[in-house]
Amino acid sequence: MAEALRIGIAGLGTVGASVARVMQAKAAELTRQCGRDLVVTAVSARDRSRDRGVDLSGAAWFEDPVALAKSADIDVFVELIGGEEGPARTAVKTALEAGRHVVTANKALLSKHGLPLAEIAEKKGVLLNYEAAVAGGIPVIKTLRESLAGNSVSRVFGILNGTCNYILTRMEAEGISFEACLKDAQRLGYAEADPTFDIEGNDTAHKLSILTSLAFGTRIASNDIYLEGISNITQADIRAAAELGYRIKLLGVAQKTESGIEQRVHPTMVPTASVIAQVHGVTNAVAIETDILGELLLSGPGAGGNATASAVIGDIADIAKSRPGFQHGPVFGRPVKELKPYKKAQMRSHAGGYFIRLTVHDRTGVFAGVARRMADSDISLESIVQQSAGSEKPSEKTVVLVTHETTEAAVRKAVDGITRDGLLTDKPQVIRIERAG
Amino acid sequence: MAEALRIGIAGLGTVGASVARVMQAKAAELTRQCGRDLVVTAVSARDRSRDRGVDLSGAAWFEDPVALAKSADIDVFVELIGGEEGPARTAVKTALEAGRHVVTANKALLSKHGLPLAEIAEKKGVLLNYEAAVAGGIPVIKTLRESLAGNSVSRVFGILNGTCNYILTRMEAEGISFEACLKDAQRLGYAEADPTFDIEGNDTAHKLSILTSLAFGTRIASNDIYLEGISNITQADIRAAAELGYRIKLLGVAQKTESGIEQRVHPTMVPTASVIAQVHGVTNAVAIETDILGELLLSGPGAGGNATASAVIGDIADIAKSRPGFQHGPVFGRPVKELKPYKKAQMRSHAGGYFIRLTVHDRTGVFAGVARRMADSDISLESIVQQSAGSEKPSEKTVVLVTHETTEAAVRKAVDGITRDGLLTDKPQVIRIERAG
Repeated sequence: MAEALRIGIAGLGTVGASVARVMQAKAAELTRQCGRDLVVTAVSARDRSRDRGVDLSGAAWFEDPVALAKSADIDVFVELIGGEEGPARTAVKTALEAGRHVVTANKALLSKHGLPLAEIAEKKGVLLNYEAAVAGGIPVIKTLRESLAGNSVSRVFGILNGTCNYILTRMEAEGISFEACLKDAQRLGYAEADPTFDIEGNDTAHKLSILTSLAFGTRIASNDIYLEGISNITQADIRAAAELGYRIKLLGVAQKTESGIEQRVHPTMVPTASVIAQVHGVTNAVAIETDILGELLLSGPGAGGNATASAVIGDIADIAKSRPGFQHGPVFGRPVKELKPYKKAQMRSHAGGYFIRLTVHDRTGVFAGVARRMADSDISLESIVQQSAGSEKPSEKTVVLVTHETTEAAVRKAVDGITRDGLLTDKPQVIRIERAG
Repeated sequence: MAEALRIGIAGLGTVGASVARVMQAKAAELTRQCGRDLVVTAVSARDRSRDRGVDLSGAAWFEDPVALAKSADIDVFVELIGGEEGPARTAVKTALEAGRHVVTANKALLSKHGLPLAEIAEKKGVLLNYEAAVAGGIPVIKTLRESLAGNSVSRVFGILNGTCNYILTRMEAEGISFEACLKDAQRLGYAEADPTFDIEGNDTAHKLSILTSLAFGTRIASNDIYLEGISNITQADIRAAAELGYRIKLLGVAQKTESGIEQRVHPTMVPTASVIAQVHGVTNAVAIETDILGELLLSGPGAGGNATASAVIGDIADIAKSRPGFQHGPVFGRPVKELKPYKKAQMRSHAGGYFIRLTVHDRTGVFAGVARRMADSDISLESIVQQSAGSEKPSEKTVVLVTHETTEAAVRKAVDGITRDGLLTDKPQVIRIERAG
């Protein structure tokens, strides 16, 4: 049998402890699958004394993750510290430069510094694996990087943040407000004390930027992402969506268009009968559309210690099955120097259907005024319905419009016009509709 | 750059021609991803003159696939001939013994002879890749073999036959009979002239046997599969299922139980709100449940030239990225000699819910007679409904029962008793209910 693979884990929080625990419990099976022993020989964490449900007495203890990263006694450095700067970044860079393989679950780090890190990995001929960084336990990185060789991707989209999907699922199921849902999610540990990063879409954007690079062979562009969170989604939106045959999900979408690539994160109406609409709670899902294969959908647990550990261990096993001298495929699917520049499509040129909910004055001519502004923008309407949201004052009404395919620019122009005309008593709500199978 | 990878394709039908076409069209991109050129240097097919939409004039032509398999001028032998015996089997065996990597889409071959072939591959240190053999373009083989290292699978199930799912989808959507649907599917090319292999579940069983081995680390047991096709599914079943919140799918299910592993292929009621219930038409889907990750679902095109070619090319790319001296993981996830014997669970001990539709005499006491037989078998009922299927004669009624979890043995005993009691005017219908998220 080949020599044991020596693994150093930096960060023993929920995920790190879970990785160590599972690798110990499944040691014999992993050996069978990889043809060699996989041994955690070193760890680094802040608190040495905490009980993590795993015996780490045989592993060397490093105060400093960077010291662990350059230790000659490990073959693989597993980074589970988190954060896009600081020790995580320094340690990963150090490990790669020292010729160690690296496995990380750190989406922020990869989104911001993935390309320079990949260049080091490629130069040193080591692997940089990061399945756990996007959509937790769902094997979307391997699918894009390996399985879909030869396919040209036209669109990749998904539910990439469990917190948001949990909140939207409960808002729909229980008819409660965003604020009440968020509080409960925080109480249950599904949302952070400061939830901004999740609910405003930043976490989804980080993950999306990685998927975009893999899908389209472009350089990561984590700052060129249109961002809209879920905090302004109301029960009125959810009920109107349901009546029209839609469900609201926070999606990250990357799409090839004639003018470039769209990267956008926003609440989205998807058809209730689509597969992605059935993805509930903290579950994640990713859909990939290509020229050769067609449409592929992967769904599963997007977070949690064990689900993330599953992806980390899969990455470690891939390294264990490789042998010295083996040159794996490039980190982001193509060598960094061959990644194309990211050409951003302007959000104003985004084409698609739109859901528009307007709270208007209840007086003659308002309906006609709304319809005229739509016509002036060349927007063709699939439906225009006067609804009772139940929340209006006696002097106002709700008008819900669903457009046929139009552009973001046209919708903005029409809604701005309606606002200027003084027809509205409240802020207009605009939610994009996404095609989904 | 490394030397070009020389590929020989045996079989230039729909899939083979599609592989050759895509590899030519995407040559530059494949080179970028694999770090070397991928060149089809030789082919074998019956008809040399047919136009396949691809220029193969640069490739050597072999009348005999076995001669191609042992040619010294190829590195990878791609078997797309089909069939579990004959030239496909001989050629694959020959190629492996000659030290060539093999890529195949042949589920029948792997289901019947996968283990001896894997042993040759392992001995020779070459890869035997077969992503296209199960669920077409869906990367379920890589997921089970690579991504889920360290996970213990408890159940894997899926829609593995597009023909059956197409028929069931249309029966439900259009209210037409199985026979009418099948005829139309044949006319449209979604079903073979002799459809037995698909509709009686044999094709699903082949694929399931491969998934079972990968999921549970057991030897392939392609003959120990409980088999029931869809030809006796009626509109009455589909309508009753819909009323009860279920949809009927032909599933292949492999499940770990206390007494062994169940492998079963049968029409199944899945909750209408589950993700797998939204998988329509020729689309396939596979759900995998594990101890570490939880539940993963993959869905996508299960057949067709391009979708299958996508998986074949992914397999070839994986070989291209490997280098001489590289030892990949074992063919069936563990070395053949370490695969556990398959211990079959008896179908009679299968535990689950059941849908039972009975056409009974319309007379006093029949309802009570049915209920008594259920009670005698200790079957607890979730519902018992007297329905009008519309198709009964005036002297008969339809009774639909849904049981709580019980066993196959109990259900058979109860239904046999009801039959012997002379309560039925037609054959009883029993459909298993499958838990699905």
